[in-house]
Parts: sequence; structure tokens; C-alpha cells
Amino acid sequence: MTQTTPQQVSIPDLIAELPGPFQQRQVALVNDAVVRVAQVHGEFPWHYHDEDEMFLCWDGTVRIELWEQPSIQLGPGDTFVIPRGVRHRPVADEVAHVLLIERPETKQYGN
Amino acid sequence: MTQTTPQQVSIPDLIAELPGPFQQRQVALVNDAVVRVAQVHGEFPWHYHDEDEMFLCWDGTVRIELWEQPSIQLGPGDTFVIPRGVRHRPVADEVAHVLLIERPETKQYGN
Repeated sequence: MTQTTPQQVSIPDLIAELPGPFQQRQVALVNDAVVRVAQVHGEFPWHYHDEDEMFLCWDGTVRIELWEQPSIQLGPGDTFVIPRGVRHRPVADEVAHVLLIERPETKQYGN
Repeated sequence: MTQTTPQQVSIPDLIAELPGPFQQRQVALVNDAVVRVAQVHGEFPWHYHDEDEMFLCWDGTVRIELWEQPSIQLGPGDTFVIPRGVRHRPVADEVAHVLLIERPETKQYGN
């Protein structure tokens, strides 16, 4: 496995680079996981993944809507793991940011 | 694979439960990764892992000392991935907290 020299990465610096809603940047690769940071503003399309996806609300408030299940409301420091196969969409009325812990092959718009 | 119902987990709530230096709690399992939160205060013993380990400084200031390499200083929101096999120790003069993204088999005191 090729591995580049690790670098210190600032999540607030990456957030400052995000040009708009649902844009994301990679924070790091760790073993078989990838950490990404994304802006949430408005409604994302419904989708699901073949892998688990962890949301960590960094700032703002994010509502994770789950298909035929009650929604989950996340504030700063709140986390929630969406199990593989569960249809969901993140929604935020005001600009919010999340860390995503998923797998490199996880597609943003789902499978 | 058996999977329990996911729950919303608050990182600040877990931090409030940590009884002392280098104590940790599991935040979540996500695919092949585990997310943990730990308190750092003082010097942890030198060790290394057979897996990569990501540090995300949650609050305070943490110095990641690397064997025969310059140390890395992390403030809130700063991340650093320690590649597998690299001897290291986290040090904090004042109480600080970190998220760790590693693998379930990663041993706190190394291999």
C-alpha cells in the first residue's frame, strides 16, 4: 500500500474552503476508512449506501431524515451512524458542517 | 454481521464521563473503523500500532511526539494520522480531549 507522508490537517481550514452546500473535502485516510468534511444547507436527495456512514455534527444543526423512521436531530458534537442500506437524507435550514466517516468507495449520492 | 440499533451519541456527554487521564470511551463502530474519545493529560508511554491511528484534537492542546521526528502540535479541530508502525506518544500539559479513529483491534498501549 502506498502511503504519502501524513500531514496535519485543520478541519476549520477545510470548512473555510468549501464553496457551497453539500461540497466536501477529504480530511484523511485511516486504514479502510475515509474522513470527509461537508457543508449541509438545504435538502440533500434521498439515497442509501452499501456501507455504514457516520455523521458527526461539527457546527450548526443537521436533521438526518430516515426513510419511514423518526428523524435524528444533531447539534455540535452529536454523532449518528446510518447503517448500510438505510435510506436517508441530511437536511439543514441554516449552514451546518459535518464530519463523515465512511469508506473510500462510498458514493456521495448513494448506490 | 450483527448490528445493534444505532443511537445518537454526544461527544461532550462522553467526555464528561471520562474519569481521568488517558481514559477512553467508544463513540461508534463504522464499518471496519472504531471512533473513540479519550482524555489526554500528562505523558502517555511510547508505543506503536500495527494499524494507522487518526487523532482529532477536540479541545485543549495535544503534542504528538514522534520517535526521531519533529513533534506535531494539535489544537481544536486539528487532525493527524499516525501511520502504522510509527512510535509515538501523546502529551498534554493541561487536560485535553481527542477523537481517535482506529480499528477495533488497535490496542491502547500498542503492540
